[in-house]
Amino acid sequence: MPMLRNPAAKYRPFPQIDLPDRRWPNRTIDRAPRWLSTDLRDGNQSIIDPMDRAKKTRFFDLLVDVGFKEIEIGFPAAGQTEFEFINWLVHSDRVPEDVVVQVLTQSRTDLIGRSFESLEGAREAIVHLYNAVSPAWRDIVFRMSREQVRQIAVDGARMLVDEAAKRPGTKWHFEYSPETFSTAELDFSLEVCAAVMQVVGPTKDWPIILNLPATVEAATPNIYADQIEYFCRNLPDREAAIISLHTHNDRGTGVAAAELGLMAGADRIEGCLFGNGERTGNCCLVTMALNMYTQGLDPKLDFSDIDSVIETVEYCNELPVHQRHPYGGELVFTAFSGSHQDAIKKGLEAQEERNDEYWRVPYLPIDPVDLGRNYEAVIRVNSQSGKGGFAWVLQQDQGLKLPKALQSDFSKHVQHLADSLGRELDADDIWRCFRQTYYLQVDRRKFRLVDYNESRAADGTRVFAGTVEIDGEEKRVSSKGSGLISSVLATIGDSFGLEFEVADYSEHALRHGVDARAAAYIEWTAPDGRSGWGVGIDQDVATAGVRAILSAANAVAHGPGTPRF
Amino acid sequence: MPMLRNPAAKYRPFPQIDLPDRRWPNRTIDRAPRWLSTDLRDGNQSIIDPMDRAKKTRFFDLLVDVGFKEIEIGFPAAGQTEFEFINWLVHSDRVPEDVVVQVLTQSRTDLIGRSFESLEGAREAIVHLYNAVSPAWRDIVFRMSREQVRQIAVDGARMLVDEAAKRPGTKWHFEYSPETFSTAELDFSLEVCAAVMQVVGPTKDWPIILNLPATVEAATPNIYADQIEYFCRNLPDREAAIISLHTHNDRGTGVAAAELGLMAGADRIEGCLFGNGERTGNCCLVTMALNMYTQGLDPKLDFSDIDSVIETVEYCNELPVHQRHPYGGELVFTAFSGSHQDAIKKGLEAQEERNDEYWRVPYLPIDPVDLGRNYEAVIRVNSQSGKGGFAWVLQQDQGLKLPKALQSDFSKHVQHLADSLGRELDADDIWRCFRQTYYLQVDRRKFRLVDYNESRAADGTRVFAGTVEIDGEEKRVSSKGSGLISSVLATIGDSFGLEFEVADYSEHALRHGVDARAAAYIEWTAPDGRSGWGVGIDQDVATAGVRAILSAANAVAHGPGTPRF
Repeated sequence: MPMLRNPAAKYRPFPQIDLPDRRWPNRTIDRAPRWLSTDLRDGNQSIIDPMDRAKKTRFFDLLVDVGFKEIEIGFPAAGQTEFEFINWLVHSDRVPEDVVVQVLTQSRTDLIGRSFESLEGAREAIVHLYNAVSPAWRDIVFRMSREQVRQIAVDGARMLVDEAAKRPGTKWHFEYSPETFSTAELDFSLEVCAAVMQVVGPTKDWPIILNLPATVEAATPNIYADQIEYFCRNLPDREAAIISLHTHNDRGTGVAAAELGLMAGADRIEGCLFGNGERTGNCCLVTMALNMYTQGLDPKLDFSDIDSVIETVEYCNELPVHQRHPYGGELVFTAFSGSHQDAIKKGLEAQEERNDEYWRVPYLPIDPVDLGRNYEAVIRVNSQSGKGGFAWVLQQDQGLKLPKALQSDFSKHVQHLADSLGRELDADDIWRCFRQTYYLQVDRRKFRLVDYNESRAADGTRVFAGTVEIDGEEKRVSSKGSGLISSVLATIGDSFGLEFEVADYSEHALRHGVDARAAAYIEWTAPDGRSGWGVGIDQDVATAGVRAILSAANAVAHGPGTPRF
Repeated sequence: MPMLRNPAAKYRPFPQIDLPDRRWPNRTIDRAPRWLSTDLRDGNQSIIDPMDRAKKTRFFDLLVDVGFKEIEIGFPAAGQTEFEFINWLVHSDRVPEDVVVQVLTQSRTDLIGRSFESLEGAREAIVHLYNAVSPAWRDIVFRMSREQVRQIAVDGARMLVDEAAKRPGTKWHFEYSPETFSTAELDFSLEVCAAVMQVVGPTKDWPIILNLPATVEAATPNIYADQIEYFCRNLPDREAAIISLHTHNDRGTGVAAAELGLMAGADRIEGCLFGNGERTGNCCLVTMALNMYTQGLDPKLDFSDIDSVIETVEYCNELPVHQRHPYGGELVFTAFSGSHQDAIKKGLEAQEERNDEYWRVPYLPIDPVDLGRNYEAVIRVNSQSGKGGFAWVLQQDQGLKLPKALQSDFSKHVQHLADSLGRELDADDIWRCFRQTYYLQVDRRKFRLVDYNESRAADGTRVFAGTVEIDGEEKRVSSKGSGLISSVLATIGDSFGLEFEVADYSEHALRHGVDARAAAYIEWTAPDGRSGWGVGIDQDVATAGVRAILSAANAVAHGPGTPRF
């Protein structure tokens, strides 16, 4: 493998921010920010096949349903299709009263004009102006001085004011982004933003949105938080501005940067569902909102039916939500390992027993039910799973609460099956394996109960009299014992010459309700020293016990080794 | 859509750490940590189909190639397959001298014994002991007091020492994880770790590894950093311990937590390639290492052939690397939007011109070439792309440097094609479209140059004499002019009655080298006011110009509208 060249020759470390009295590390997030979805803009411009009108409409409707009140719907100057969608949408009845649409425009005369035209007739809208301010962009892309770059922003802001004045029928709001903020000189970003505010004249009641992008993530997230705190503390007329964050995920810390930036004083977060957006994507708004939710804060976004959100997002973006994506991924509530399964099983049981208000289940930071998922997917069984896994599956699907020792007995069979199949086991696999192992409802068993009666003899003993099929032939049998179990054992000994003892016995109802069935578990020991378990399930509690003994009889008669069918 | 219930009724906020004099926010990461890959343990136990021996071996070899010196190879007590692989591996010749293998064991007598057995005969190994210490686990999973939980750790540590003493042929190291560290009381974690150190007796030269897991990520990453700094500052005999971090990604901030934790004083990072691991996965070691790389630090891990790393990881885990995964994803160096493409194009050109050591290209935090990728994938063209996109593709693939006005002319054709195909365009699409638009090497053109000679007449004018095919029939033609261009224009006027003027002309060599071909670009204006471009490409610079005029002649003769073939 070729070695990476020496990076010191090619890359410079990101400079620290001089802010020794920073306050954000002592703060926490204590309320939901204003959210802006840019799925239809930053998201849409970064996907292989941009959305058509049908997809954009479906995505917009989803965003409204989820609860977004600010939605960036496009870049009107990007092309005719984009322009027409925006103009169609603002004239449709799809934008609720409390939802404001936003469009993005570079700070260029023709593009700003076009952007206002696209919003002609809107009830309320945000026009979002941007130009890049960092040295790399100034030097390489524009070949402009600081003064020239500031002038671009000021000219754009002037045009915002003028164009808005021409269209008094719309309630206008303005957003300004010093693009590439996180890699620009902080004092220059402040200077440009202050100059824009001078032109726009925002107030506390009609604030400007100042959006501070990490256009490319270039440092650890604490640095971004320092930048945001520095900006907030040094912006003149801070009250007349809403500070908005727009992070990217080039270093895999886009959510962290937005969270720490919020602690550092920001008011508003821009991002996309499941972190779509240019390159590595934007801050994932699902993750950030549900992170708040798990801290007891209402995020004001609703992901209680997360699977339908995923379905729409995957359909529109033609990109998958990864299996390990926080909260949404297929595997994020799943445990395969035995110790994890065991802890989750205990946690869920304790939760039910405690029946208090607080969620406290090992390995599950959120209750899957809150996202519209169920517990069935939580525990999955493969060759690495211990007893917790299948025991939980059998409890959830069949209502069986297996005794510990029976779990140990059955685990050999499950592991053997998982190894031989070389794949994950589903609930059907496990239930089939259980029925075969304990001779429940399978054809190839030696003994099968047809029917029986139980009566009390004159001497007080119990009399079992029934029909048992042996190797396919029915036989009438009967014997006495001190109780039902012993009378059945005696019958099997007397009629079939099969001796074994019952070492343990337990029984429980399978579900609540009047037509509850019962399960009986019998641990047997044979004269040759072997031992094992018999299981019986029936509508009638007594019959379940009889079936469990016949299950045991099948195992004793079968001899050592796993029954194979 | 059903609304999320009120989370305040169900979830508690994570408490802050009392550490007002924290130092980590003033620190930076200034050297590579010790890396531990747990792909074969935490990674393997969390995938649907655990790896077989062939896959484990392939993954292990990859980890060695990448440069890992510490590799957790399994959980010997999990099953016979796992045990056998570990035992086979340590006796194979696959573990280089400078690589140490590690195995994980719960703190239980039988499992610890089994773990030492699996490593029997190893040259050097780390035995990694763990037990969970947090209140939720103590209360729900174990139903044990603090004292009992501490005793489990102490008993386990004692057994590590005893078992190691029995096997002096191996160089042993010990790691202890207070599992669920991040949700446990800090002082209790310190107490347990100190008790373990008392038993083991580590020294500066033979330190114990104390691994502090965020088993489930439960707070913003600054809280984890506070916990790590608090732990490091309060651990007795800090010098005799290597502080290791093991983060998970339940809140999408696993990499951030590891980075801030490293700033807070840790020495070692555990994780998986591309963030595999339980649920949402572990800290992604690729991301964290390359984050350091882009700061000019040598991470001591080599991802210079990242595609082959991805191929092995995807094959072994049977999970994809997401399209937007930092550094590795298919789309992370891609720009579809016109302004991004334009900036990247300028940045790459400036980089080449400057030819200095430092990487400074807009929107690209790392040079794709450093990861074994090329620039071809950076710029992709769809209906949202501006001129920058196809211009870059034609420059990269064909060596064409289109004049600005020709880019504008061609962009209509590209956008039209992208809209009508409704998909992303590849380099072939663009090249085909270019050839058709400018009548290069296409069958259905009116005029085609067969051959020609140029000579000087007695009066000093140039004489063009050649064979031109018109509508499939060859015709000998000749005319005079003041230079080559004007003589060809005169020929077309005289012989075919087609009049137009040349408004602009430029030409350049296509590539460096002796057999360089040339491209000529001609802007034409027709008497009816139309204008456009002609393009000629040839081995010979003069012939390229002649071809460009015939290209223009085809466009003039075709009349308004896009030529369709």
